[in-house]
Amino acid sequence: MLRCCVVGASGYTGSELVRLLAKHPNFDLSDCFVSAGSQDAHRPITALYPGLQGHVDLTLQPLDDQRLALLAQQFDAIFLATPHEASHDWMPALTAGNARVFDLSGAFRLPDTDVFAQHYGFAHQHRALLDTAVYGLAEWHAPRIADSQLIAVPGCYPTASLLALKPLAEANLLSAEQWPVINAVSGVSGAGRKASLNTSVCEVSLQAYGVLGHRHQPEIAQYLGQPVLFTPHLGNFKRGILATIAVKLASGVTAQQVSDAYQQRYADSPVVRLLDHFPRLDDVVNTPHCDLHWKVDEASGHAVLGSAIDNLLKGAASQAVQCANLAFQLAPTAGLLEVRP
Amino acid sequence: MLRCCVVGASGYTGSELVRLLAKHPNFDLSDCFVSAGSQDAHRPITALYPGLQGHVDLTLQPLDDQRLALLAQQFDAIFLATPHEASHDWMPALTAGNARVFDLSGAFRLPDTDVFAQHYGFAHQHRALLDTAVYGLAEWHAPRIADSQLIAVPGCYPTASLLALKPLAEANLLSAEQWPVINAVSGVSGAGRKASLNTSVCEVSLQAYGVLGHRHQPEIAQYLGQPVLFTPHLGNFKRGILATIAVKLASGVTAQQVSDAYQQRYADSPVVRLLDHFPRLDDVVNTPHCDLHWKVDEASGHAVLGSAIDNLLKGAASQAVQCANLAFQLAPTAGLLEVRP
Amino acid sequence: MLRCCVVGASGYTGSELVRLLAKHPNFDLSDCFVSAGSQDAHRPITALYPGLQGHVDLTLQPLDDQRLALLAQQFDAIFLATPHEASHDWMPALTAGNARVFDLSGAFRLPDTDVFAQHYGFAHQHRALLDTAVYGLAEWHAPRIADSQLIAVPGCYPTASLLALKPLAEANLLSAEQWPVINAVSGVSGAGRKASLNTSVCEVSLQAYGVLGHRHQPEIAQYLGQPVLFTPHLGNFKRGILATIAVKLASGVTAQQVSDAYQQRYADSPVVRLLDHFPRLDDVVNTPHCDLHWKVDEASGHAVLGSAIDNLLKGAASQAVQCANLAFQLAPTAGLLEVRP
Amino acid sequence: MLRCCVVGASGYTGSELVRLLAKHPNFDLSDCFVSAGSQDAHRPITALYPGLQGHVDLTLQPLDDQRLALLAQQFDAIFLATPHEASHDWMPALTAGNARVFDLSGAFRLPDTDVFAQHYGFAHQHRALLDTAVYGLAEWHAPRIADSQLIAVPGCYPTASLLALKPLAEANLLSAEQWPVINAVSGVSGAGRKASLNTSVCEVSLQAYGVLGHRHQPEIAQYLGQPVLFTPHLGNFKRGILATIAVKLASGVTAQQVSDAYQQRYADSPVVRLLDHFPRLDDVVNTPHCDLHWKVDEASGHAVLGSAIDNLLKGAASQAVQCANLAFQLAPTAGLLEVRP
Repeated sequence: MLRCCVVGASGYTGSELVRLLAKHPNFDLSDCFVSAGSQDAHRPITALYPGLQGHVDLTLQPLDDQRLALLAQQFDAIFLATPHEASHDWMPALTAGNARVFDLSGAFRLPDTDVFAQHYGFAHQHRALLDTAVYGLAEWHAPRIADSQLIAVPGCYPTASLLALKPLAEANLLSAEQWPVINAVSGVSGAGRKASLNTSVCEVSLQAYGVLGHRHQPEIAQYLGQPVLFTPHLGNFKRGILATIAVKLASGVTAQQVSDAYQQRYADSPVVRLLDHFPRLDDVVNTPHCDLHWKVDEASGHAVLGSAIDNLLKGAASQAVQCANLAFQLAPTAGLLEVRP
Repeated sequence: MLRCCVVGASGYTGSELVRLLAKHPNFDLSDCFVSAGSQDAHRPITALYPGLQGHVDLTLQPLDDQRLALLAQQFDAIFLATPHEASHDWMPALTAGNARVFDLSGAFRLPDTDVFAQHYGFAHQHRALLDTAVYGLAEWHAPRIADSQLIAVPGCYPTASLLALKPLAEANLLSAEQWPVINAVSGVSGAGRKASLNTSVCEVSLQAYGVLGHRHQPEIAQYLGQPVLFTPHLGNFKRGILATIAVKLASGVTAQQVSDAYQQRYADSPVVRLLDHFPRLDDVVNTPHCDLHWKVDEASGHAVLGSAIDNLLKGAASQAVQCANLAFQLAPTAGLLEVRP
Repeated sequence: MLRCCVVGASGYTGSELVRLLAKHPNFDLSDCFVSAGSQDAHRPITALYPGLQGHVDLTLQPLDDQRLALLAQQFDAIFLATPHEASHDWMPALTAGNARVFDLSGAFRLPDTDVFAQHYGFAHQHRALLDTAVYGLAEWHAPRIADSQLIAVPGCYPTASLLALKPLAEANLLSAEQWPVINAVSGVSGAGRKASLNTSVCEVSLQAYGVLGHRHQPEIAQYLGQPVLFTPHLGNFKRGILATIAVKLASGVTAQQVSDAYQQRYADSPVVRLLDHFPRLDDVVNTPHCDLHWKVDEASGHAVLGSAIDNLLKGAASQAVQCANLAFQLAPTAGLLEVRP
Repeated sequence: MLRCCVVGASGYTGSELVRLLAKHPNFDLSDCFVSAGSQDAHRPITALYPGLQGHVDLTLQPLDDQRLALLAQQFDAIFLATPHEASHDWMPALTAGNARVFDLSGAFRLPDTDVFAQHYGFAHQHRALLDTAVYGLAEWHAPRIADSQLIAVPGCYPTASLLALKPLAEANLLSAEQWPVINAVSGVSGAGRKASLNTSVCEVSLQAYGVLGHRHQPEIAQYLGQPVLFTPHLGNFKRGILATIAVKLASGVTAQQVSDAYQQRYADSPVVRLLDHFPRLDDVVNTPHCDLHWKVDEASGHAVLGSAIDNLLKGAASQAVQCANLAFQLAPTAGLLEVRP
């Protein structure tokens, strides 16, 4: 059994990591950490997540500097569900040993430090670590994930968007003249576990936010290889992301070519499901799947792509587990697909 | 036109008062106040409630002591959608002139100061004012409301409960041996407008709270005239309260007697609607109505009563307007039923 | 008072018409009709819509051929909330007198009968009537609406889309090279009042439908004057449409020009509200408003437009009332904005 | 591996059985049936439940009389998620062999055929089978379940209610003078998978139904051993039941006695979780758990009990699996608790 811990276990993505790793056949989850000053320190995780009662019996330990320095030696795998700044600041210590680090924050996703500073509000200090980081889009970067110590697990919107767009981009089916237009709706859990008026039942309905400036826009563009127009929305539900993407195809591209691109690319990817209809959010919520569908209008040269994931799972925790499976040469979906669909 | 103001206009009940009074044919709403230290001070109310844009053009003014002292002279009617402590502390000043005061807090609802202290956490200092206060259950205390300067507008749960129970109590149809069992589910807006993890979309599902200790239990018992067993729940919706009440009837009471009690009591009450089926929450949301229905099992001597209101309207703001209509001898439903049902 | 009736009053848009017209200061709503074979015939409308109890006291009358032939003489205004086929078939009779007809179906919206047949599944038989019909987009076609006997009230998606796009098109600010990309999410009431597994609480989550083939796509293109890429979605809520529209601007267009186009066009349109943030669905639900906001990226030449309406009101019933106000030279928002915002 | 099939696999409880049995370590689910005339016959179950794609590859087979006659020989376990009438009519054939039958309908739950006829609308024809049937409340009837061929799996409301009430009844802590008052709210999936206006997103809010006459009332009373007053409600959500139960305790009963009764009864029942707060619906949805909590007011002699289950799991499918585990001497929670909590 591989020894692992979750840092930032009190949040929504952290607790999902705990759920998954506690039942994973190859990982022994022995420790859960929160920041040293957290008001949740020393509480059992079931006090925050009563649904874990009977399944997980772990206490949220405060992570002080002394303990932090030990993690890289004590664990084979460290899962970080921490704020961007914490991941950034702690990474040198966490990568000082043999532990593989799976970082769910945005701290090591963007290779361009100028773009990073613009979108994350602080300057990146660890250029060398950034150069070694691999973007953990499991279906696309498997070989490099297997070889890297530091895996930057993708954001939720980029995961939904890139899984839909990359097969077309790789096959050169997208027009270079028009930016793909990504509209996505996320559940409120994407905003994290915190007291906020904005996430109150009374306030949430359906609304666009971060228009033309969201930090996931450069992340998608970086790993797609071309600019995109990305508009996120907050929906009135807890979990899930549905992305609808309109693209202009390259001249003469047929519906068959589009279909072939998806079929070939994801033939061996059990996490990605190619549907015969546009995806429905509830079919992926609480699952590690990404559901995809598309429709082509050959006459006008447009296609509409649909992509759905659980933002906390394929958009965070289960993708991190996929990365860990790759990193340790485990079965690709170990701990993910044995469970109830 | 009667001059009026709303104190505490930034909250959910306060903003509902603003919505209603801004269109009321007999009131001139000229001023909206928030507490002196509120971060919403000096903001237009439409910044908090964009839905008011095009309808209300008022700024949230900070209410300092100096201004407070003037309100009792400047206005005919003062509507308080303020915390219990604020209503309690400010009441001497607010009642020092001719203004009628409609207090939506709990500060002047309970005549017993010991019970008050136990449930509200502070000692009541204004015994004399408390003695003059009238409980503003509009359909039941109309004559006294008309004569009082200080009207304590009922809580949302008590309104839903008392409107269902009082006709039976008044007609002596309830068994004295068993406590009525009130189960009620409230929308999240009942918790007020504030950042809180408990009201997050991610956290709310359906859950009982305040079991055997909610402050509305003694309020209901006080104005019903007998003890009750009251269990509130938080539901996963924004507005509305649905109360289902199980009672033991006095020996030999018939279904006809129960029906007669409701029909007679509410024949002239357009706000209360007697349905031929159990009420559905959405039929009362955004309306000033209380919908009632009941079913009697003569064989076992039980009855089940259903009552539904909008917690922010009949459970707060529209009931306050009903009280104001009574206080100023206006049409009983002025400003309430002209609007879209 | 103008005499009016609602045909198809048992449906969601029909009942909204009843709500509005029953309180309209200039209309006398005396009759509500359903199709002759409807199982709701002879029932009071409050049996279907208990929320109307105490406000509307009308029975749903079956509309047989004999009665149909009389309507054009008996009423000044006929509101049709009927299936497309019914509106199409009955229109000659309904326009045979002096009555103005406000048709909420799609039967008379598309001038091209080939496009009509393709999207509505039957051939149009009334070319002459089609030529006289005016598209009832109230803010844009006011003079023609005032002069026409037959007003084809726009669909819900086209209303939300066109109100956002037309100011830019009229000012020649849109690039001709790229199709505007419209993503819209509608509440379930858009599917009408009927038993269907697809609209069950258990089945609805969030899903695209009618991709690249919805009948509202040609309607939008027709009245915008250029093709669009329109993708509707079904959301997990009752009412409202939120449309997010990505456009490429013509070369050199500035944010100021975009802003000016909106400000100038809607300066005198109280129903359209220009917000300083992207619209939120709940601010327009139960109101006749259309809320608009936009953001421009001058560097890349893109803009994102946000538009929100209540699909049953501005997307159907309240827009029909706006058209009727124009047709009868009433105050433009009579019966619409007096009510609670 | 034990051979099993699901009859009625197209419904919500049927599909949950499929989900569970497809991953169960001891069962081989080879066949799914629907009624011979079902429009879903010959369709893959993933066409109805896309979320099963990649997990279950079974076709819904029509069950004609010929095939029906073979089931009792072909399978070790037959799970019936069928209408009451179908279970009733088919039971002689299904119990003619060695197969154990787990019936999720109500056909064999009520021993009194008069009560049965009154609540189910048809006369029971199989008195002998009824006498052999065991009520499959897993935590309470384990020995008899282990020995019986025909297990009548409890209804969803009775499961939630009885798990909360029986420990108190068994310990003689309930007053005989007052009926326990059960208020419960169920998700819409409890109404089954079918087209219905009543379950439309547009129509559901929160409403009591079946007041003083629901068929689960005699079922609860039968297995509790005393009458109850049961009021079900339909809530605006998909899954889950929350029951809040008010009881009068026998004279002198202490809070400690109540607590002891629960602790002792459920010490070895991992499916039942005793919480330190009132249960929240979302903590049990998608799980096989029943969450319980209670509060006692010694002064007045009342207690309030809270109970939450997933209506489709502990209220149907997972309880059937618990019964099957008992019937075949498997681990009590095999196939249930290995999964993600």
